[in-house]
Amino acid sequence: MGGTEGGSLDGSPTTGGAARADGRVGTGLVTPVLLAGGTGTRLWPTSRARFPKQFAPLLGEESLFQAAARRFHAPGFAAPVVVTAEDFRFIAAEQLDAIALCPQSLLLEPLPRNTAGAALVAAVLCAGTDPEALVLLAPCDQLIPDAAGLRAAIALGVPAARDGRIVTFGVAPTRAETGYGWLECGAPGHPGVAALTRFIEKPEAGVAEALLADPRCLWNAGLFLTRAATLIEAARHHAPDLLAAVRAALAGARSDLGFVRLAARPWADVPAISVDHAIMEKAANLSVVRFTGAWTDLGSWAAVFAETAKDASGTALVGRATAIGCENTLLRSDSDAVALVGIGLKNLVAVATKDAVLVADLASAQSVRLAVEALRAEGAPQATAFARDHRPWGWFETIGAGDGFQVKRIQVHPGAALSLQSHRHRAEHWVVVQGTARVTVGETVSLVAANQSIYVPQGAVHRLENPGHDPMVLIEVQTGSYFGEDDIVRYDDRYARD
Amino acid sequence: MGGTEGGSLDGSPTTGGAARADGRVGTGLVTPVLLAGGTGTRLWPTSRARFPKQFAPLLGEESLFQAAARRFHAPGFAAPVVVTAEDFRFIAAEQLDAIALCPQSLLLEPLPRNTAGAALVAAVLCAGTDPEALVLLAPCDQLIPDAAGLRAAIALGVPAARDGRIVTFGVAPTRAETGYGWLECGAPGHPGVAALTRFIEKPEAGVAEALLADPRCLWNAGLFLTRAATLIEAARHHAPDLLAAVRAALAGARSDLGFVRLAARPWADVPAISVDHAIMEKAANLSVVRFTGAWTDLGSWAAVFAETAKDASGTALVGRATAIGCENTLLRSDSDAVALVGIGLKNLVAVATKDAVLVADLASAQSVRLAVEALRAEGAPQATAFARDHRPWGWFETIGAGDGFQVKRIQVHPGAALSLQSHRHRAEHWVVVQGTARVTVGETVSLVAANQSIYVPQGAVHRLENPGHDPMVLIEVQTGSYFGEDDIVRYDDRYARD
Repeated sequence: MGGTEGGSLDGSPTTGGAARADGRVGTGLVTPVLLAGGTGTRLWPTSRARFPKQFAPLLGEESLFQAAARRFHAPGFAAPVVVTAEDFRFIAAEQLDAIALCPQSLLLEPLPRNTAGAALVAAVLCAGTDPEALVLLAPCDQLIPDAAGLRAAIALGVPAARDGRIVTFGVAPTRAETGYGWLECGAPGHPGVAALTRFIEKPEAGVAEALLADPRCLWNAGLFLTRAATLIEAARHHAPDLLAAVRAALAGARSDLGFVRLAARPWADVPAISVDHAIMEKAANLSVVRFTGAWTDLGSWAAVFAETAKDASGTALVGRATAIGCENTLLRSDSDAVALVGIGLKNLVAVATKDAVLVADLASAQSVRLAVEALRAEGAPQATAFARDHRPWGWFETIGAGDGFQVKRIQVHPGAALSLQSHRHRAEHWVVVQGTARVTVGETVSLVAANQSIYVPQGAVHRLENPGHDPMVLIEVQTGSYFGEDDIVRYDDRYARD
Repeated sequence: MGGTEGGSLDGSPTTGGAARADGRVGTGLVTPVLLAGGTGTRLWPTSRARFPKQFAPLLGEESLFQAAARRFHAPGFAAPVVVTAEDFRFIAAEQLDAIALCPQSLLLEPLPRNTAGAALVAAVLCAGTDPEALVLLAPCDQLIPDAAGLRAAIALGVPAARDGRIVTFGVAPTRAETGYGWLECGAPGHPGVAALTRFIEKPEAGVAEALLADPRCLWNAGLFLTRAATLIEAARHHAPDLLAAVRAALAGARSDLGFVRLAARPWADVPAISVDHAIMEKAANLSVVRFTGAWTDLGSWAAVFAETAKDASGTALVGRATAIGCENTLLRSDSDAVALVGIGLKNLVAVATKDAVLVADLASAQSVRLAVEALRAEGAPQATAFARDHRPWGWFETIGAGDGFQVKRIQVHPGAALSLQSHRHRAEHWVVVQGTARVTVGETVSLVAANQSIYVPQGAVHRLENPGHDPMVLIEVQTGSYFGEDDIVRYDDRYARD
């Protein structure tokens, strides 16, 4: 996935409308608003609250977030505005960096508030610099292999959007899907664009059959193209309090290391509601553009399974997985260190990570959320966190622990530095195994190369930096009485953490 | 399990025969021969060739081997003779030590050769000191909760065994089991003892129904009570070459740290065959004692599941396991670090360890062996080895690895020492985290306490010892180009390893 999607538009849009021969749509650029703040748990254990599905390599090597960003990295589109959670800021920045993409803006939500607040804050931001700005609200958990086709459909919608319509995208349905919302098209308007007569919530099976038989009905792709000003105007009518809270959160935002941190207090007043429910379903000026390419919402393991390559028995193996006598089954190991074996299984999904395993009947795949809630209630770290913890300077992973000690593997990006800090309850031994570290302990600064070690006594003020051009890896052995991440006294931090 | 089994006989045998009021059976003691050399893979991933099921805590905290040893640690029984594989010698010794049991002899097979060789070598050893010695051949993968009842049944068999019979034990069947062998009883002989008229191999389902309906037919418990001389005499008739190879292997054995290492060359000539096939099924002098207590051969996950406590839905949870809407399913996590979740499962077994996961339909549980063979063919370490590797001095576990480094957690028993050694391709950093180490590097000997570290340069001759009275734990960070266990040059080893 993704490998065939991004890059520049491989031709001008295939249909007319307002698309110009240079590949630009309308009179200006469309700003993709990547809504990447979700904390999806339905794809646990690969997706967790601290590292949700949009950032995980669910299919292929690229994440869904990266694929979404690359999908709109094409002529006619401006650099994206990304809206995500404060916790994911370094993951999002790193993943864009890895595909050489620079966002127009990276907005951070202090609290998860569903998509209405995120969509509006991006619209208000864009309208501030260009009242005529067009925004494309784009979720980041979808699989859309034909990116050029999608961009052509978007180009078709531009004139309608410029004329004040909110343009939705309807996918030609291939089955009576009960897990998706549907759209009902009405009379034609602009070329290739129809009026939207009805949003249809996830239907019952019988209703879905009727919808499939009705040529007016399409799956709702969840994408919206509109003038920023149109969306704001709709919010003024249908969600004035929400709009006021969003404006206040943006007005009070502070810029920080390339991120825009929304003000926490007004943001707390933003209701947690989807943009569909808060605005779209109430607005009267909606249109639909039909998209005939493949489209999948990767909302469950059943959906991921459907998109994974299978053998003749319908069994899909991902990673270090082995199947004996299985049918219609997904066996997926997301860790090189874990061998997964399935025997005599049918209609099942099994996903193994380093610290958690899910085995579920395909028909029950929607209940994964319940399992995660059960784990959370037990206080199991696997409910939300990953063994690997991403930080602005790199990441760490706890690889061993016992009475009085803990062992971590720490990787520091080239040029990055941890905060100047000390610990009350632990001492640290560092053995550098890749690259070279610059280590400050008290008044002394040392360069510590691979195969060298250094000791940080309990209470000592210290800092770890990677002065080199390659990642630096070290093994940290902590000894002491308490190893919580909260035993850090920070004196100075280039990432402005407390 | 086991907690209620061992200890001293809680009363004299309940039936007459030759049992004496002091609880001793016959005129001498019965020597239990614990056959603990199997490398069972049907309980993978908990059981592996390098740490097979008889040593794993499959039910409760004790291993099946420990339970077997404690079952016969009672008046009337001599200390056991243990026959196991060379690879398992320290596991067996440690596990006996942990339950304060001292074996009469610990015989090591240089190669796995099934049970015929193991049984005979024990018989020849015992006959060497007492021609009238009685031996009880006992597998170590059985669950027998009523140990006292079993010992009473054994006492019943002693007079017949003294009179030259080979006494088998028949379990009152509770179902038409196709996974067990069966015994057919004939005319009564000694009190409580019948002649054995037929061994019946694992039967087809229809045959098993007929056997269940026939009061003469019992499950074969796999235990044999006989004079050592009787068994040797039977072997002389039915397996003379096997007996000759066994005699030669024992004659050439060398005693070593409390172990008896059988001579490898003659042992290689011992055919890999069960004692049942090689001798018992051909001998004419067999008898049966009926045992009415519960008996289970823990030969598959289905059998382990049957013995695990279940909730109302028939779901059994072991370790960090969570079930949502499951029926008749075993969810078992054998690692504190792995959370296992099952959703909507039926008739399934899922077993998670730190580095391997099995998910199997209960009816396919016998195919686990095939999966292990597939993994072995791929060269997966999980096919045979465990993350934790037991050594004479303690154990180690690889907890992390990357390009140019490897991290191990090493635990050294009190008073134990690793060999004096060096490595060609790696340097080692040791951080002691529990206890105190005595470390020799070249000519220098240092005491390294918890929270201290020491460096062992590449090529340096070194030794690690635990001079204390508590286990010593250290984290070893290896750096270099090659980390195989074969990069050890040994100069001196108190465990006589090459």
